[in-house]
This record gives sequence, structure tokens and C-alpha cells, in this order.
Amino acid sequence: MRIDQLESPAAVVDLDRLSANINRLQLYLDEHKLANRPHIKTHKIPEIAHMQVDAGAVGITCQKLGEAEVMARSGIKDIFLPYNLLGAAKLERLMHLARRVRISVTGDSDVTVRGYAAAAKVAGLTLPVLVEFDTGLGRCGVQTPQEAADLARLIARSTHLHFGGLMTYPSNEQTDGFAAETRRLLAVDGIPVETVSAGGSPALWQAHTHAEVTEHRAGTYVYGDRSLINSGIMGQEEVAFHVIATVVSRPTSERAVLDAGSKALSSDGARGASGYGLILEYPDAQIEKLNEEHGWVDLSACARKPEIGERVTLIVNHCCVANNLFNEIVGHRQGEVEVVWPVAARGLLQ
Amino acid sequence: MRIDQLESPAAVVDLDRLSANINRLQLYLDEHKLANRPHIKTHKIPEIAHMQVDAGAVGITCQKLGEAEVMARSGIKDIFLPYNLLGAAKLERLMHLARRVRISVTGDSDVTVRGYAAAAKVAGLTLPVLVEFDTGLGRCGVQTPQEAADLARLIARSTHLHFGGLMTYPSNEQTDGFAAETRRLLAVDGIPVETVSAGGSPALWQAHTHAEVTEHRAGTYVYGDRSLINSGIMGQEEVAFHVIATVVSRPTSERAVLDAGSKALSSDGARGASGYGLILEYPDAQIEKLNEEHGWVDLSACARKPEIGERVTLIVNHCCVANNLFNEIVGHRQGEVEVVWPVAARGLLQ
Repeated sequence: MRIDQLESPAAVVDLDRLSANINRLQLYLDEHKLANRPHIKTHKIPEIAHMQVDAGAVGITCQKLGEAEVMARSGIKDIFLPYNLLGAAKLERLMHLARRVRISVTGDSDVTVRGYAAAAKVAGLTLPVLVEFDTGLGRCGVQTPQEAADLARLIARSTHLHFGGLMTYPSNEQTDGFAAETRRLLAVDGIPVETVSAGGSPALWQAHTHAEVTEHRAGTYVYGDRSLINSGIMGQEEVAFHVIATVVSRPTSERAVLDAGSKALSSDGARGASGYGLILEYPDAQIEKLNEEHGWVDLSACARKPEIGERVTLIVNHCCVANNLFNEIVGHRQGEVEVVWPVAARGLLQ
Repeated sequence: MRIDQLESPAAVVDLDRLSANINRLQLYLDEHKLANRPHIKTHKIPEIAHMQVDAGAVGITCQKLGEAEVMARSGIKDIFLPYNLLGAAKLERLMHLARRVRISVTGDSDVTVRGYAAAAKVAGLTLPVLVEFDTGLGRCGVQTPQEAADLARLIARSTHLHFGGLMTYPSNEQTDGFAAETRRLLAVDGIPVETVSAGGSPALWQAHTHAEVTEHRAGTYVYGDRSLINSGIMGQEEVAFHVIATVVSRPTSERAVLDAGSKALSSDGARGASGYGLILEYPDAQIEKLNEEHGWVDLSACARKPEIGERVTLIVNHCCVANNLFNEIVGHRQGEVEVVWPVAARGLLQ
């Protein structure tokens, strides 16, 4: 079966490009002696996670416990959760996982760390915990090296926890300074900082410029999207993920309507671009607005215009959220369908 | 089990409010002798669709063939698809459905109508087709009463199609004029306009002011969200749909981070409001930014501030897209869990 025969909207992944993207990152990180721990929130598909591990990743990153449970069930052995996990139910699930695979977690507060310590004690396990630090994003994370060192000491003092190092997102010009200062503060107590885990796809090829960083977490690179193209991380011809849509209406000479809306593409914008996706066959068309199942396309800048019933191929603004809207992703090689993957880890509990 | 015990993020529906919302709309439309054909894209849950039909709806509206297939399998007997369905595969599925339930569809072009005619002929069925018209939204739909009448004549002339009337979204001040003029043009040929179906929740309580309209399609009213509150359609105390989230980080005195991001709430904005949701317990807090699994909350306007681990209750900007991001919706009465519904019709084929 060819992808031309799939009903639209369909989310398709070019398997050759997928492999090439996986290998390109692995080679780059290997060359720079950085551990690769790809973030599976982009695809949520066990087989792709295994492709990443088989290529040389030390393990994977999951954003939710539900994702980690799916990945562990699929045979992935080393999972990092860069997220504060709170509450008895989640901590119990975490301990169940920790009995079966190597799982490491993150904390940025005493509350989170004490929760891990209590749960690990009951379970009789030793849980590796990394301290999240914030170097300007302004999301989670301790704000100063002193806070990071204090929290690291709390972890190191906890019988059932192991201080696994530091974690941040994204890598930036403050990352090294913050990590080095924390390392210096902890050296006094003889507490080593084993790992400094940083991440992000938008600054992927600068990962090696951060001397303190030992591990990189990237997600989006595996598929690619408009944001990554506009960040200069990859070319249009390297993007593996596309949404196939159909022109369902041409109500005026300047307008087309697609059967892909915010429930196929999401309302996320793209770095450095307007509109809701790039139409490969009509690059001058502008997807100017989305409703849930309609994409509004302004054709006024197009010399040639699509007909009703014509199929088009979109590069989405943000592949991680688009992938998350489909039940199934179709893998193909040069247009020939090879596999249909359920998006196994989507829509699950945090 | 209480909803307080659910792991976050969780999407919950207050069943008493849900029933009240269903009944309030039905009473209003009954009073004004308008047929009620609620749009199930909001919830995608068969049991809620049955509640709507049991309350007096003439049938339901689905936006996708995949939704209609789920609803037909659940025993719903009358389904309207206000969408141009194109291509052999979809038309075959449509005919399969049309053998089992009363299904009516929409066209705004010759291409779409000829597709319906050919498929219905092969299937030996008569398919009701409504003509979509555009009175200012600028999405799909024929642009003039003359175009509407021409397309209606094409439908009426097709042996295996039945001209079912006119369809638009949303109802506005041009709706009546457009419908009346089309009716006048068709009267010459003795073609009656049986139904004028209009829709939308944002102008719900003005549905009766459109003299030509015979049927109303509303979706969002069943749950409610920030957009409907800000449109004056319902009060905060009538909203049935909430997302429960947990404060996972308090990195600074002015900031909290929630475990609900764009994969729980979507990036959709709300009519007349900034931010990504209303926190009931902290109405002065501003959800200023979302990442996939993080909600960034600015607490600077809050006198009282939440602790790490505290659970909060959100009214979302747009309930239809938020509902679509969860695998399951939890129905409760005064906080006591009564049912867990799979979102059966989500993520499916168009």
C-alpha cells in the first residue's frame, strides 16, 4: 500500500529519514563524547525508542510516568524522568518501575526529594535523583548553585537516594557556570556530580560547546518540524514527519480548506514563521487559521492553486504535539507503507 | 472514590451540571420550536450523546466520519455530518453507515456532490445532502444564494440524492437573508428547503432570533469553558468540565508550575481572556505559558499562593480540544467518581 492511498488526515513518518536523523545525532554526540538520552515525548512509540537505543543512546528520557511505564513494558531498560513526581499514587508507580528498570528522576524542591526518599525507603530501593536547575528559561529548577548544592546534599544524605547529578533545559550560556559552581560547592563535602544532563533540539549542534555537560536530551530532531527548520537545525529534506491532508473546499478563488485542523496539527506556532504549517506542494500558500477539523489556506500568493480533492503534504509547526493527536503513525519508505504504529504512550496519566 | 484521589492531570465532568446544561438547551430550543442536533465533537463520548438524544435532540452532529462510526456503533440513529467528504474510501465508509442509520451530509461544491451521487448510486441508497453556505465566517460554504440554489438543483436532480436543505456556521445577521433568498430561488423549481441548520455555542441564546433557521447545532454548551463564560453564555458555576492539576514546582515566590501543559489543555486561546485557563482556587493567578507537560503560572497578583503538591482545578480555554487530549474523562457527582468514559471517538480517521 502506498501512502497516497491512506485516508486523510494521516500522520506519516519516512523511515529512511527517521534512521538518518537518529544516526546523525548519535554520531555527533559520540564524536564529542556526550551521552545521548533522547526524549521520547516526540514520538511516544516503543519501536522508535528501541531504534534510538540500538543506535547507541544510553537510555531514554520520558516526560511522564505513563510514558515510562509503556517504554519499560516494551523492554527499554534505562529511563530518566526529568520531572518532579509528587503524591502517593505516582510514587508507588515509580517504585514499581524502579524494581524492573534503571529509572532516575528529578527534583527541584525539598518536598519532591523527601517524597522520593520516603517511597524508596518503603520499597527498599536506591533511587537516583538529579537536581533540576534553571539558567534562564524560567520554568522549573533551583535558581542558584547554592540551592542546587543544598538539595544535592539532602539527596546524598538520604539513605535510599543517590545523588545522580544535575539537569537543566535548555542548554545555554549560563549552563556551564552554574554547573561548575555547584560542582565546586559540593566538592567540599566530597559529593561528586556524575552527570550534567542538558537538552533541547533547537540548539542541538551546539551541545558540544558546553564543557560541563555530559549528556544531551533531544526529542524533536527524530522527526523534524518547521521550528527546527527555522532554527537551522535541519533542512526540509531531512524532515521525517508529515501530515497528509485533502483539500475539501475551494469556496473562493483565493481560499482552500483542508481536512486538517487543530485536532491534527495543534494550535502551536513555529519559531520564526507565521501560520500553521508548510504545504510542500504549495510553499506560497499560507495556513492562516485552524478550526478543530478545518485548516484555512490563503492561496493569494500562489501562481498555481490546488483543486478540490487534491492531497497535500504538510510539515507541521511542532511535531511533538501533532504526533500526540493521532492514534496511529504510518511508517513508510519512499511512499510504500511498511508499518502502522499505535502512539502507545499518548493521552496517559502524567 | 473521590476526584481528589485521581492522579493529575485528570479531566473530570460534573454529571449534575452536564445534565443541567443538556436540559437547559433542550428546553430553550423546544420553547422556540427549533430542532436540537448537538455536536458531539466536544465530548466524543457515546453515553453523553445518548443523554442528549434522550433529552429530546433529533439526532447528533459529528465532524468526522470516524466519530459517526463510533456513534452509530453505540446505537445513535440519526447523524448529520456537516463536512465535505471526498475520496473513494470515505464514500464507501459513508455508504456502509448509511445502510444502518439515517445519515445526512454536506456539500459546497459540484465535486463533493457528484461524489455523493456516484457512491449512493452504487450502494442503491438515497442520501440526504445539505448545501453549506457562508455568511461571513470565511471558511467553507457557497458564497451566494445563486450558488446555493444551483448546487441544490444538482442534488435534487441526482436520482440517489435528496436535497435536505441548507447548513451554515455560525448563525449571524446574514443567515436569514441568505436562506430566504435561496428558498425563493428554489421555489421557482418547486424544490423545498426542508431544513436550515445553523450552529454554534457562542451565540446560543440568540438561536431563536433567526426566523429562517429550523435546527441548531451546539457543541461546547454541554461542558462549558472560558470562551463560553466570556461570551456570556454560561456562568462559571455552570461549567461541567475541569482539569485537575498539581503544583509540581514553586521555583520562585512569584511562580508556580503545574503538571498540565499543552498536551492537557492545548494551546488554544479563549475569547476575551489572556492565558491558558482559569484556576478556580487562585483566580488572580495567570497561566501565562505552556510547554507540553508544564503550565507556567504567574502568582504575582495572588495574595495567597499555592504550595508544592497542592491540587488545583482549572476551567480550560476551549473544552473541545482539551477533552480530545485525554484517553479518559471521569464523571463525578459532587466529587464522587461515578463513571470513567474512554473518549471513544477521538484520534480517529477524518
